[in-house]
Amino acid sequence: MTTVDDHKPAGFEDNDQHPVGHGRMLRKEDPRFVRGRGNYVDDVQLPGMLHLAILRAPVAHARLVGIDTTAAEAHPKVKAVVTGATLESLNLAWMPTLSNDVQAVLVTDKVRFQGQEVAFVVAEDRYSARDALELIEVEYDLLDPVVDVRRALEEGAPVIRDDIEGKTDNHCFDWETGDAAATEAVFAQADVVVEQDIVYPRVHPAPMETCGAVADFDPVEGRLTLWSTTQAPHAHRTLYAIVAGLPEHKIRVISPDIGGGFGNKVPIYPGYVCAVVGSIVTGKPVKWMEDRSENLVSTGFARDYVMRGEIAATRDGRILGIRTHVIADHGAFNGTAAPVKYPAGFFGVFTGSYDLEAAYCHMTAVYTNKAPGGVAYACSFRITEAVYLVERIVDCLAAELGMDPVRLRLKNFIKPEQFPYTTKTGWVYDSGNYEPTMREAMRLAGYEELRREQAEKRARGELMGIGVSFFTEAVGAGPRKHMDILGLGMADGCELRVHPTGKAVVRLSVQSQGQGHETTFAQIVGEELGIPPADVDVVHGDTDNTPFGLGTYGSRSTPVSGAAAALVARKVRDKARIVASGMLEVSADDLVWEKGAFHVAGDPSAAVTIQDIAMRAHGAGDLPEGYEGALEAQITYNPPNLTYPHGAYICVVDVDPGTAQVKVRRFVAVDDCGTRINPMIIEGQIHGGLTDGVGMALMEIIAFDEDGNCLGGSLMDYLLPTAVEVPDWETGFTVTPSPHHPIGAKGVGESATVGSPPAIVNAVVDALAPFGVRHADMPLTPSRVWDAMRGQARPPI
Amino acid sequence: MTTVDDHKPAGFEDNDQHPVGHGRMLRKEDPRFVRGRGNYVDDVQLPGMLHLAILRAPVAHARLVGIDTTAAEAHPKVKAVVTGATLESLNLAWMPTLSNDVQAVLVTDKVRFQGQEVAFVVAEDRYSARDALELIEVEYDLLDPVVDVRRALEEGAPVIRDDIEGKTDNHCFDWETGDAAATEAVFAQADVVVEQDIVYPRVHPAPMETCGAVADFDPVEGRLTLWSTTQAPHAHRTLYAIVAGLPEHKIRVISPDIGGGFGNKVPIYPGYVCAVVGSIVTGKPVKWMEDRSENLVSTGFARDYVMRGEIAATRDGRILGIRTHVIADHGAFNGTAAPVKYPAGFFGVFTGSYDLEAAYCHMTAVYTNKAPGGVAYACSFRITEAVYLVERIVDCLAAELGMDPVRLRLKNFIKPEQFPYTTKTGWVYDSGNYEPTMREAMRLAGYEELRREQAEKRARGELMGIGVSFFTEAVGAGPRKHMDILGLGMADGCELRVHPTGKAVVRLSVQSQGQGHETTFAQIVGEELGIPPADVDVVHGDTDNTPFGLGTYGSRSTPVSGAAAALVARKVRDKARIVASGMLEVSADDLVWEKGAFHVAGDPSAAVTIQDIAMRAHGAGDLPEGYEGALEAQITYNPPNLTYPHGAYICVVDVDPGTAQVKVRRFVAVDDCGTRINPMIIEGQIHGGLTDGVGMALMEIIAFDEDGNCLGGSLMDYLLPTAVEVPDWETGFTVTPSPHHPIGAKGVGESATVGSPPAIVNAVVDALAPFGVRHADMPLTPSRVWDAMRGQARPPI
Repeated sequence: MTTVDDHKPAGFEDNDQHPVGHGRMLRKEDPRFVRGRGNYVDDVQLPGMLHLAILRAPVAHARLVGIDTTAAEAHPKVKAVVTGATLESLNLAWMPTLSNDVQAVLVTDKVRFQGQEVAFVVAEDRYSARDALELIEVEYDLLDPVVDVRRALEEGAPVIRDDIEGKTDNHCFDWETGDAAATEAVFAQADVVVEQDIVYPRVHPAPMETCGAVADFDPVEGRLTLWSTTQAPHAHRTLYAIVAGLPEHKIRVISPDIGGGFGNKVPIYPGYVCAVVGSIVTGKPVKWMEDRSENLVSTGFARDYVMRGEIAATRDGRILGIRTHVIADHGAFNGTAAPVKYPAGFFGVFTGSYDLEAAYCHMTAVYTNKAPGGVAYACSFRITEAVYLVERIVDCLAAELGMDPVRLRLKNFIKPEQFPYTTKTGWVYDSGNYEPTMREAMRLAGYEELRREQAEKRARGELMGIGVSFFTEAVGAGPRKHMDILGLGMADGCELRVHPTGKAVVRLSVQSQGQGHETTFAQIVGEELGIPPADVDVVHGDTDNTPFGLGTYGSRSTPVSGAAAALVARKVRDKARIVASGMLEVSADDLVWEKGAFHVAGDPSAAVTIQDIAMRAHGAGDLPEGYEGALEAQITYNPPNLTYPHGAYICVVDVDPGTAQVKVRRFVAVDDCGTRINPMIIEGQIHGGLTDGVGMALMEIIAFDEDGNCLGGSLMDYLLPTAVEVPDWETGFTVTPSPHHPIGAKGVGESATVGSPPAIVNAVVDALAPFGVRHADMPLTPSRVWDAMRGQARPPI
Repeated sequence: MTTVDDHKPAGFEDNDQHPVGHGRMLRKEDPRFVRGRGNYVDDVQLPGMLHLAILRAPVAHARLVGIDTTAAEAHPKVKAVVTGATLESLNLAWMPTLSNDVQAVLVTDKVRFQGQEVAFVVAEDRYSARDALELIEVEYDLLDPVVDVRRALEEGAPVIRDDIEGKTDNHCFDWETGDAAATEAVFAQADVVVEQDIVYPRVHPAPMETCGAVADFDPVEGRLTLWSTTQAPHAHRTLYAIVAGLPEHKIRVISPDIGGGFGNKVPIYPGYVCAVVGSIVTGKPVKWMEDRSENLVSTGFARDYVMRGEIAATRDGRILGIRTHVIADHGAFNGTAAPVKYPAGFFGVFTGSYDLEAAYCHMTAVYTNKAPGGVAYACSFRITEAVYLVERIVDCLAAELGMDPVRLRLKNFIKPEQFPYTTKTGWVYDSGNYEPTMREAMRLAGYEELRREQAEKRARGELMGIGVSFFTEAVGAGPRKHMDILGLGMADGCELRVHPTGKAVVRLSVQSQGQGHETTFAQIVGEELGIPPADVDVVHGDTDNTPFGLGTYGSRSTPVSGAAAALVARKVRDKARIVASGMLEVSADDLVWEKGAFHVAGDPSAAVTIQDIAMRAHGAGDLPEGYEGALEAQITYNPPNLTYPHGAYICVVDVDPGTAQVKVRRFVAVDDCGTRINPMIIEGQIHGGLTDGVGMALMEIIAFDEDGNCLGGSLMDYLLPTAVEVPDWETGFTVTPSPHHPIGAKGVGESATVGSPPAIVNAVVDALAPFGVRHADMPLTPSRVWDAMRGQARPPI
């Protein structure tokens, strides 16, 4: 691994001795994880706890004729069998999603996708619950399934959502952005127009831990405690209040250690609600944990976009406009994490990192007989698809113009002096300096040398490809005007307390699914207060103990909660300043905050740290006027804009001409996420995202047969990349701080997942150039590459 | 029970339907308690939990020669035996108290009081731990015990605290207040001077639940969780950090449901530290629970004051000055809750409710071979003793002058126009209006009629007594200049969140030992926000989930945290006002807050409540400028002054001339605690305190024999009042709000305990007037009354 070194010295092995603030340090949470002391939902054991299993529909589209639960109820270890009819009587059969739709908790009228929830059993143990599922007899009346988005839009297609009053087709939403007429004018006058049909297949985030919950309803206090694999505990609490009719202050959602989220754990799935209902009806704690197949078939898909991209340019490579048409497959329900107002991320960045004259996008969302899609799998509401589209068609244009793809990009980048840059669809990129990032990637990759090597190999008939992508992301999932969930805004709270002995605790609205928040946020607060990160505890993932906020996804933790943490620390620092002024006997205005301490200007010996101050700040001494008492503060941070990280990726592949096997030989990723808090954690995020990209580009697809059977229901069918498929990652960075973020950080959780697929696909297409290939759809499995080499490229869906 | 009705209508039986805000409502916590679903420390059961028992010294003063733990360690169920020597090697043998002293956790050098902690055993069950105590062999070298304060002060008395370097006597502290010379001058010119020796015996708060803890140390996370019967979880956390050397942010102190505190649960006792050490050395959770005898012999005594009171007056009853000398018995250590700076409460109110020309007080604190005393048992740092003293000597003066004791008080009261009133020792009584309170008590009691009845009975040889007391308390345990613990100030934090659906949660630094905080604070917040108290959850008693503060004692919850709760609610209301202005499309300045809603001035139809606003306040709509987001706020409240409740009590007793048995026939209590939040809870507090008063006046004493053996080690010896000993309480009230408290509340937790003993003793002395009795010391048991009747009154200690 090549890593350009950071602004802090090495020596990060010794966590406790680490100097204050930003820089490399080992993750504070890892001692727990590496010793097997993590506490995941499936580790929760409560006295008298029962187990829940869900009966799922074996077919994609069928009317429910009848259910007979007699035999299951007679099972000696079964405590309850619940069907949609039971829920209907409780007014709980349908739940609102977070996206202006409803979803059946259990089927009452008809099955709309394979794997949909039909009934559940609560039993004394997991095995009995599973066994009893087989005793439930269900009669279905099969209906014609709709699995193709184009067919879904045809006149006369079966109407999937006949539960919606007056619904006569499968349209979900229609959205557009940009100026269609201006774009048409630009295209009409362009020297060159390239268009390309591009499919981003349905994929699954496939976290290590599946979804699950332990619900514990206390009838005496009327209180529900829910340990839940969720990325958004506060939003879930509000939803449970609405769905189950419980008072919100009597609901506690705990998101303990989570084994990966990647957007899969943003939505509320019916299983969570089943666990709640199970606990209410049995009066006992109830645990529900998906098995791997349930997770892969029924929950949280992403992508599934059928796109047409058009790009207009001058003959010498000046890009004038981009126009796209998208059909988005939302599955049977517009799921919890599907776009609410519009596909914000896609609309935000489909124009890429380029200074255009016009742009236009039209998107149609469609219902099909598939599980609900649209989770924010490293996509901040469709960024991944948009970046893939633009970076693919820019490469198509380069091929058309016979121009080096790097040179084409350099020529069209938004210039540093143009920031903040308003795109042709009205989004304001906060900051950027693209050329140095691109050049750093070229330098690390040895780009010119690679091109020479490629020419030599090509001359020998070897298939070497060099792919480039350059992305600008819109992350932070704020402010309100762009995005919200359940009509809830994107403001996030943060609370900070410095204890009398100078140790601190910070409470976040966001929580971690493995991102290292316990370390990053301790560093942010530590940097602002001059307190070692080891002395700062981070509390998250428990609605009872944390301020309100919308959760972790869309790379938003650092851009939003990170800002809140820095600002709340400054609030505490302002309190401490008053105490320090008393201790040092100078006016607060004469104190300078520097290197983690208050100094008296002009007197190098007079300095106090916040840890020096802490006991006195809680103390009985005569404290200065204006000091409220206790080093505590609270803030709600409402981001004024999104943040826009960018990055330049260069991928080198070799394609075996005999087997069509793609080997990623090298991958250079230069990321600019603004201020870097812990470079080691950033690199970890990048490494993970790049691996995601290899999976999506080369291996992963959730496909369906024409009956709507999901063909990716196990890890035998749904292939995830391993160490064998990935190269040693080569990472670098540039730093362009966000001007509106208090510490300039932009968020990095999704960058590599967003940026890597186009680089890999561009590399493969580049390798196949001798065969005249201009495009091939993911996943570029050997058989698909083989077909492409033979001019038989076909869309994956 | 006679109760003057309150400003809110009846109908409090239906809690959930209760209108917003202050007024009678059933306690929200009671459904849990009456169904046996309270969660006390002894209810905590953790997997693998061990049990701890403490070996206590059987003698009061002895050098420790040796301990043999071999046999105990060999017990098959014993996991650890720990002695002072072990603790010494861990540097844990001595702990700081909260009061500028140290206390032995386990004896290392010598035993200083009977019941002192010598060793502890941790075993698999409580029974084995107890059994193993008997296997520990301890050799003592007996020393001369010092149990009398006067002897302790004698030249050549054995030095108890020879652990303190250079200590050659038993002085603990000497304090004085007031102007000695001015007071002497007043006394010299007075027509009448009365002096009286008065003893306030040592008593025990005797809560229903004894002290205990469950300590759970996690070696992987280095985290200590301590469920503890404490009234001050945050102060305890800081102390554990200091005592055990654990980082404060890794310590969580949980004070769950507590079965009564009364000051007994303010200190850190060695048992708590033993539980922590037990968990650290065994690596398992460890439970320690005192039995009744341990609680009565070893923990948290109060009073033990030997006082001389002097009062100077004109012949016509104008009181000129008060002078007092006190010897305070602090036991072997200046315990956690003993005075730190000076005996603030005593110094604050020993001048009573009277407008004096001069006053002086001198107090000497002494070490003796008794368990540490000085807990804040309804005394806010010695208020009970001071009020008893002044109200006793005022009655002595009345007797000397031949004046009705009510008339004497009325003549000398501080006048309403004199408030805020600065006493001759520099304390500022915030507000008061004494005469109406006294007259309301006289009205309820039918005072003149009672005097007529007494005259008739006395003529028949019957012993009827009428006793009066009038008290002014100094409560709130703030601001800093008067009181602190561990050098920590008296500021208290409060946090409030209103959830999107309009339910709220308020987090307090103080917590409840039965006072009904879950109700009172829900009402305070509900009143300020227009939210039904049922929709406001109160969180307290958990350092991880609550802001810093000093705990509940000294009637301080409502004066300090109640102010914080009201102010934090107003902060949230200010946030909501901005949202409301957007909804109602008027400027925020044009909104009027009235009856729990924002109204547009001049438009009766335009109004929104905070519950109407809540979802939008978290929402995606275009919110007005200046709105930070989320209805959350935090505050630290640093009280500018104490609050000074007052009250007038009238007691009627009959003394059986044959048995000397005292019967409290009637008791009228008129309290003025400022604004009344929940009159039902206030009455409950008054009833409890009056019962305390009957116990102290007539029954309770912790006495010692000359060897230092505690004579009150069981409830057979330490008599507590029951329903048989108390009358139907007759309560009334006046309302004089505190001018500096945001809602004018003053605190009422201790009023009746403070005010009732002098009324009862005054009544008994009044009944015994035919025998020429001017004073008799508590407890007025039949034998002591019998002696008094025979002119043989003797001090109790």
